Amino acid sequence: MGLSSFVYPGAQHTRLHHSLGAMHLMSEAITQLREQGHEITNAEADAAKAAILLHDIGHGPFSHTLENSLTGVGHEEISLLIMKQINRELNGALDLAISIFCNTYSKPFLHQLVSGQLDMDRIDYLSRDSFFSGVSEGIIGSQRIIKMLNLHNGSLVVDVKGIYSIEKFLVARRLMYWQVYLHKTSVAAEIMLLKILKRAKELAAQNEELFATTALKYFLYNNINSDDFFENSDALQKFILLDDSDIQAAIKEWMTHKDKTLSLLCKKFTDRQLFKVIVSETAPDPQFAESLKKQYAQKFGISEHEAEYFYQSHVVSTDTYNPKDESINILYKDGTIKDIAEASDMLNINVLTKKIEKYYFCYCRS
Amino acid sequence: MGLSSFVYPGAQHTRLHHSLGAMHLMSEAITQLREQGHEITNAEADAAKAAILLHDIGHGPFSHTLENSLTGVGHEEISLLIMKQINRELNGALDLAISIFCNTYSKPFLHQLVSGQLDMDRIDYLSRDSFFSGVSEGIIGSQRIIKMLNLHNGSLVVDVKGIYSIEKFLVARRLMYWQVYLHKTSVAAEIMLLKILKRAKELAAQNEELFATTALKYFLYNNINSDDFFENSDALQKFILLDDSDIQAAIKEWMTHKDKTLSLLCKKFTDRQLFKVIVSETAPDPQFAESLKKQYAQKFGISEHEAEYFYQSHVVSTDTYNPKDESINILYKDGTIKDIAEASDMLNINVLTKKIEKYYFCYCRS
Amino acid sequence: MGLSSFVYPGAQHTRLHHSLGAMHLMSEAITQLREQGHEITNAEADAAKAAILLHDIGHGPFSHTLENSLTGVGHEEISLLIMKQINRELNGALDLAISIFCNTYSKPFLHQLVSGQLDMDRIDYLSRDSFFSGVSEGIIGSQRIIKMLNLHNGSLVVDVKGIYSIEKFLVARRLMYWQVYLHKTSVAAEIMLLKILKRAKELAAQNEELFATTALKYFLYNNINSDDFFENSDALQKFILLDDSDIQAAIKEWMTHKDKTLSLLCKKFTDRQLFKVIVSETAPDPQFAESLKKQYAQKFGISEHEAEYFYQSHVVSTDTYNPKDESINILYKDGTIKDIAEASDMLNINVLTKKIEKYYFCYCRS
Amino acid sequence: MGLSSFVYPGAQHTRLHHSLGAMHLMSEAITQLREQGHEITNAEADAAKAAILLHDIGHGPFSHTLENSLTGVGHEEISLLIMKQINRELNGALDLAISIFCNTYSKPFLHQLVSGQLDMDRIDYLSRDSFFSGVSEGIIGSQRIIKMLNLHNGSLVVDVKGIYSIEKFLVARRLMYWQVYLHKTSVAAEIMLLKILKRAKELAAQNEELFATTALKYFLYNNINSDDFFENSDALQKFILLDDSDIQAAIKEWMTHKDKTLSLLCKKFTDRQLFKVIVSETAPDPQFAESLKKQYAQKFGISEHEAEYFYQSHVVSTDTYNPKDESINILYKDGTIKDIAEASDMLNINVLTKKIEKYYFCYCRS
Repeated sequence: MGLSSFVYPGAQHTRLHHSLGAMHLMSEAITQLREQGHEITNAEADAAKAAILLHDIGHGPFSHTLENSLTGVGHEEISLLIMKQINRELNGALDLAISIFCNTYSKPFLHQLVSGQLDMDRIDYLSRDSFFSGVSEGIIGSQRIIKMLNLHNGSLVVDVKGIYSIEKFLVARRLMYWQVYLHKTSVAAEIMLLKILKRAKELAAQNEELFATTALKYFLYNNINSDDFFENSDALQKFILLDDSDIQAAIKEWMTHKDKTLSLLCKKFTDRQLFKVIVSETAPDPQFAESLKKQYAQKFGISEHEAEYFYQSHVVSTDTYNPKDESINILYKDGTIKDIAEASDMLNINVLTKKIEKYYFCYCRS
Repeated sequence: MGLSSFVYPGAQHTRLHHSLGAMHLMSEAITQLREQGHEITNAEADAAKAAILLHDIGHGPFSHTLENSLTGVGHEEISLLIMKQINRELNGALDLAISIFCNTYSKPFLHQLVSGQLDMDRIDYLSRDSFFSGVSEGIIGSQRIIKMLNLHNGSLVVDVKGIYSIEKFLVARRLMYWQVYLHKTSVAAEIMLLKILKRAKELAAQNEELFATTALKYFLYNNINSDDFFENSDALQKFILLDDSDIQAAIKEWMTHKDKTLSLLCKKFTDRQLFKVIVSETAPDPQFAESLKKQYAQKFGISEHEAEYFYQSHVVSTDTYNPKDESINILYKDGTIKDIAEASDMLNINVLTKKIEKYYFCYCRS
Repeated sequence: MGLSSFVYPGAQHTRLHHSLGAMHLMSEAITQLREQGHEITNAEADAAKAAILLHDIGHGPFSHTLENSLTGVGHEEISLLIMKQINRELNGALDLAISIFCNTYSKPFLHQLVSGQLDMDRIDYLSRDSFFSGVSEGIIGSQRIIKMLNLHNGSLVVDVKGIYSIEKFLVARRLMYWQVYLHKTSVAAEIMLLKILKRAKELAAQNEELFATTALKYFLYNNINSDDFFENSDALQKFILLDDSDIQAAIKEWMTHKDKTLSLLCKKFTDRQLFKVIVSETAPDPQFAESLKKQYAQKFGISEHEAEYFYQSHVVSTDTYNPKDESINILYKDGTIKDIAEASDMLNINVLTKKIEKYYFCYCRS
Repeated sequence: MGLSSFVYPGAQHTRLHHSLGAMHLMSEAITQLREQGHEITNAEADAAKAAILLHDIGHGPFSHTLENSLTGVGHEEISLLIMKQINRELNGALDLAISIFCNTYSKPFLHQLVSGQLDMDRIDYLSRDSFFSGVSEGIIGSQRIIKMLNLHNGSLVVDVKGIYSIEKFLVARRLMYWQVYLHKTSVAAEIMLLKILKRAKELAAQNEELFATTALKYFLYNNINSDDFFENSDALQKFILLDDSDIQAAIKEWMTHKDKTLSLLCKKFTDRQLFKVIVSETAPDPQFAESLKKQYAQKFGISEHEAEYFYQSHVVSTDTYNPKDESINILYKDGTIKDIAEASDMLNINVLTKKIEKYYFCYCRS
């Protein structure tokens, strides 16, 4: 949920809650598939549960918001690195879980339950985010969807009786994207946080002194990239130490940093003077950005380069359903299979499969 | 919900609950519209609440199931007759409520709140039926939808920010139709109930003795129609006395009636040996019905005419959204208005506006 | 809940819901005891579940309200008769269930789970009645209580960690008694219902004609008692046919009966002109009743004997916890056992074990 | 809830949620009292809501856990200081709110709603903590209690019809204390946190270098006391900057501090190797502590003084209801008033008013 609690103060649920919830749903999905007559050994069940429990463990502070900006590495890759480290400590107990996570195991549906169009991850987070944000419309029929799961040629399918539930799942997902995940106030806060980190790294590159925990300093003062993570266990150890508090404590401290750009951003962020956001379906006029830049430079007494930290043109996109990645297949009573986009007469296939893009132009209010 | 409790045993909620709930939502809708700057006097508010409180008061036993079959008159007409009678007793206190109910009042949006595409009736019953049946997917964002209401040229509109909620409302409504209201087991039970009443009326027309309360007898032995209701206050007084218990007690008693057709239907209904249902998108083969008729006549030792009481070809239809009746209009920030079918890119306009028909062929199992 | 829906309109839940709920809790209790290391065979588990599923099957219309008044036999005895009949039809499949129900089985804790101070019956109905009446304070920690169950010398005990939950269970139970089950409006309605049935039986004894289903007539015109039930299968078959609708249909019909006492009571009941209730801790003044009797006789033009149908002095009593019947035992870590009344320092043992009596004097308002 | 999320991971709700919730309940209580005919002006209503909204604003990081340990000043005093500062900025807009908060206003019941035996603070936090911890038994009938409120001689009283709800409130409160607030795992974590801060302050007093934000350093290196807060606005400004992240970031950093005692405590805390807790009703044997001290000194290679950081004898106490402080008064229909401890026959007055003490001896596991 990133910084959604700026908009929905109830949204204080944690990644631990989500991971436990997804593991619980995995148990139910396995029970369901077994009841349909498909063999899943206890070892496979445990491995699938371990895989989903750990699928998000590579998330750093502020999860998706800061992903890549501190490390240049995606959270799935880091999750895998951490799983491998735990696996070494546990003498291979996670071999099967890792194989499922990486989709190299001989039963691909187990991977689909961890990561796919209808994985337990999504089913958990949609309901959970909906509940804690109070946006009750995001609630989906988790129990019903799971009860409709089946296998066909070794892949996950949904019984035709569940078609309305799937329609509602896709509609709810789209609703949550636009109403919660991409709410403009959350996006404004996230952009500010990214700007703060970027400025801090720029100052660090100039050898400016910055208050930070040892772990955070490591990522500010070194240019860590994917290779470092894979070759240098130091990067991973430091990364594991990081959590939201490293960033929060630093931002509060930086409010009095002598760099005007950094301190101003940190003060505005802390005092909730968030960037204003203009949402549009076409790219914003570059003239507007240009005039803002000059205005900020003059007003704050900073350079034009520094003034660029006070606005951002941002494109958000979402495709509710991308059958190219992986489809949701509906199983009919006669044994035939149809993609949901074809099976549903309600949903507009062109919309479902179209990538929707919106322009969020964010800028400092004064 | 008719006989939905045959499928969803939790669905024991009553019309009283629904009427109180709809009245509560009406209060909230009025508060919302007032907050948007539209004048609604206290007298109008009270009248709108009275109108929705009483909108369903004309329902007889087993509501929609037996509608028309006992009286030949729709429940809205009877609701109006009862409102008028109460109005006489209250010396005109319901004048304004009746005017709103009949859509003759100068502020048509008040009628739209009582009866329209987004009336408080639907918003209440979708959530309520969803809750009590346990089909959690029917839950809609009632609070959110109401918070998005506004007026435009005196008609109800929905703010563009509420577009996803309306999409979900329409999807949930369709889901509830197919998964709950038109569930084949409920339909089977309803068909049986209709057959029982029809046979009882047929026997009454032949002057056969039938156990029944005085009120029920009135409708069995007289051929009551719309004119009787309007001209003869006796019909209305008798109708008001009827509730589910008149029918239930009679059905139990008729299990031992000497007419084999009636007693057999009543026994099977009471013992839950419900008709089997075949759902199809095309009309069933008339040959199948013909062969069943012969089979039942022989097996039960009844005439072919009587055998026809043991099967029924039934067409159910639903149009999720019919913009010809009345549309859901979306209000954009620039003041323009679009029909939801046009405004939503998610929903398939062709489906939304298409009348869906399915054939339910119901027949006695043995 | 008898007639509680006169006070709490949401209380429409049925005995079927309760029986299914109690059976579900039984499954959980069995799982818990097995996890504590106690052996319960699958046959025993099934039998315990069957016993609790059927424990209330002997309830007639309006359950506790009319208990004894139609039949002179308690519902447990009738439940047992019905179980035995089903058992014969199922060739002894319920032998073990009946043995548990009657507490003749060698593992008495199974009977305690069906009927005892902490049985699954109470745990279900307290939560259920609390939920549907909206009296949220009656909610108890069902899951927690069940998780604290254990056995000691073959009897059910509660782990000391669950002591606060038991305290709350007893407090909630007392609250539900006084706030819901013995609410004076429900009691008033129940007294009226009893008066109606009593008058109807009196008229039947005088061979007056009364509208009623065959099953209801059987109990009105015959003086059925315990012996009839045990010796005469006709009584049981008729009893099974009875449900609320037999009574409701009759009461509506009796509103126009020529007997003034009966018709007046039925009209007032149907129009919700319920008796007024005075609650006191001492017996009401007999003079008051006497003066009412004369007043009603004169006002309604009936005899003094008939006038007695319009008031009733009624004593309600409840003992929250009666350790003589059967105690709730708390298991300490050192293996010792204490009765909850002794173990709890919060609850006043004198109150817990004292039978509380209150006088409800009910009388016709005008 | 301090560190309750160590035990109940769902307990992530914040003080902001609680403050908003308590303010909402205040609105309902004011509506209720007005409906009972008591005059409350709009200015008084706003002030009471402001007072409860701000009543907890003086809480520092980890709320009750670190109260006093950083500042030597209670949170109420700091709340008042902050209110006064806001009041100056708002030119006296909080005058009345402060007067209510300090109980110097002429309508003492307004203060009782903010802080008293039945204040909106408690009513909110009991329900909220119960909900988020999942300990459903702590749920109280908030709506019912508020509906039972009334005034008598200018003081808050509860209508006699609410007596069972008050009993349940007191039982629920006691349950929440022992089952949640004083859960031994939470207490263990809190003791460790206190030990860590105490050691850090000791090192600071020796001029050892410690990583910390400027605000935290201020409280570590200066011996701040009550006088400083009142005379020195710097202390308050620094205090306001503190939140959980200052402490969390420091503790993670101190895991590698060269002081063995500090780093060991921080590592164990972070890795959740919490102190073990022995709960008893009598004071623990001092010999046991003495032997632990020697053992730790030897094992960790530290002084005996330093070894004392690894265990703690702690006394927790709770009085469910203290009529000396302020009583809950029950209003009878005849206008008489009784203290709840006298009015309730269920609750044991001796227990209610007795201060319960338990000994929690906490010590490092290895």
